[in-house]
Amino acid sequence: MSAVTTDDPVDRADRADRVPKQDRSRATRQRLLAAAVACLAERGWAGSTVSVVAERAGVSRGAAQHHFPTREDLFTAAVEYVAEERSGALRALFPEGAAGDRRAVVTALVDLYTGPLFRAALHLWVAASDEEQLRPRVTELEARVGRETHRIAVELLGADETRPGVRETVQGLLDMARGLGLANLLTDDAPRRDRVVAQWAALLDGALD
Amino acid sequence: MSAVTTDDPVDRADRADRVPKQDRSRATRQRLLAAAVACLAERGWAGSTVSVVAERAGVSRGAAQHHFPTREDLFTAAVEYVAEERSGALRALFPEGAAGDRRAVVTALVDLYTGPLFRAALHLWVAASDEEQLRPRVTELEARVGRETHRIAVELLGADETRPGVRETVQGLLDMARGLGLANLLTDDAPRRDRVVAQWAALLDGALD
Repeated sequence: MSAVTTDDPVDRADRADRVPKQDRSRATRQRLLAAAVACLAERGWAGSTVSVVAERAGVSRGAAQHHFPTREDLFTAAVEYVAEERSGALRALFPEGAAGDRRAVVTALVDLYTGPLFRAALHLWVAASDEEQLRPRVTELEARVGRETHRIAVELLGADETRPGVRETVQGLLDMARGLGLANLLTDDAPRRDRVVAQWAALLDGALD
Repeated sequence: MSAVTTDDPVDRADRADRVPKQDRSRATRQRLLAAAVACLAERGWAGSTVSVVAERAGVSRGAAQHHFPTREDLFTAAVEYVAEERSGALRALFPEGAAGDRRAVVTALVDLYTGPLFRAALHLWVAASDEEQLRPRVTELEARVGRETHRIAVELLGADETRPGVRETVQGLLDMARGLGLANLLTDDAPRRDRVVAQWAALLDGALD
């Protein structure tokens, strides 16, 4: 029997006290990361300091610095958080498979690139291209998310990558999705985007069959 | 005969003095704009102040402020400069037409989105999405460059836009080019990009014929 499962009342009281504290700490951390991402998406790197993020999260600056001593610590963790959220959103798209509906798959993939997670990622990429402290971690995580996105897209589209050109066809589709995300940065591009997606889903159907 | 073309020697001396001064002034302005674009591409919005740009251009801070009293003046002019350079680069691609070589056209269009002008434009877009003073002008110029890019792409590809889907096919291609530019921001993506371009140029050939 380990110390953790003993029935010693002192130990039990200690555990009861400790678990909620860990929960609170985890909740605070999550709030800070979500606020960091929202700040990045709305105010960019220049407007995203630890103080601004702490205020947005409703956390004291001291508590924020306890979790993330420096701005780079905070945003490196935010990069990982965004990467995980993007992977999760991707895996959640069609939990039962896409049943051959390629237009639905293309629409869903493109939607991932026009939401707030893409905006935050875009700010991170641009900030990382100028900030040596962010760049290696962002590049590494981006490569991981990119590989995962490609793998899931291939699966949902029912694409046979052993056939020549199929791999590049799917890659080009994801590049288009990224470009559509960028086109949505300054204006609401939804009506045009819907038409482009319909047309390219049809081209893709021809190329993959 | 206008005052400008009189033979009065005082006037002539004045002209001789004035013309080079105007040239110098124009050259200084151009140097400042080129330096502003280079700064934006390399250091982002946060690192691009009037002082930094003036130093890079080899111009005194006072002279820089004579041309551009505020940072917004400088970067609004830089936005226009980038837009004009991008239009010029586009028109210069195939001065004699593309002679039906669609892969060459796709390659050339994609190249436009992976060079320093795209990097500078990307920094501007991201900065403009957060800076109310930049946003309207950047959005307006981006729409203009977008329309011109589309028109030139249609012409070079020999695309018949009266056929259903052709307009959206070309738009999707330009979105893909933009996404490929973004993929090149953090790492050198050239080998992968070449394969994607080859495959999509082939798909495009099928879709446009």
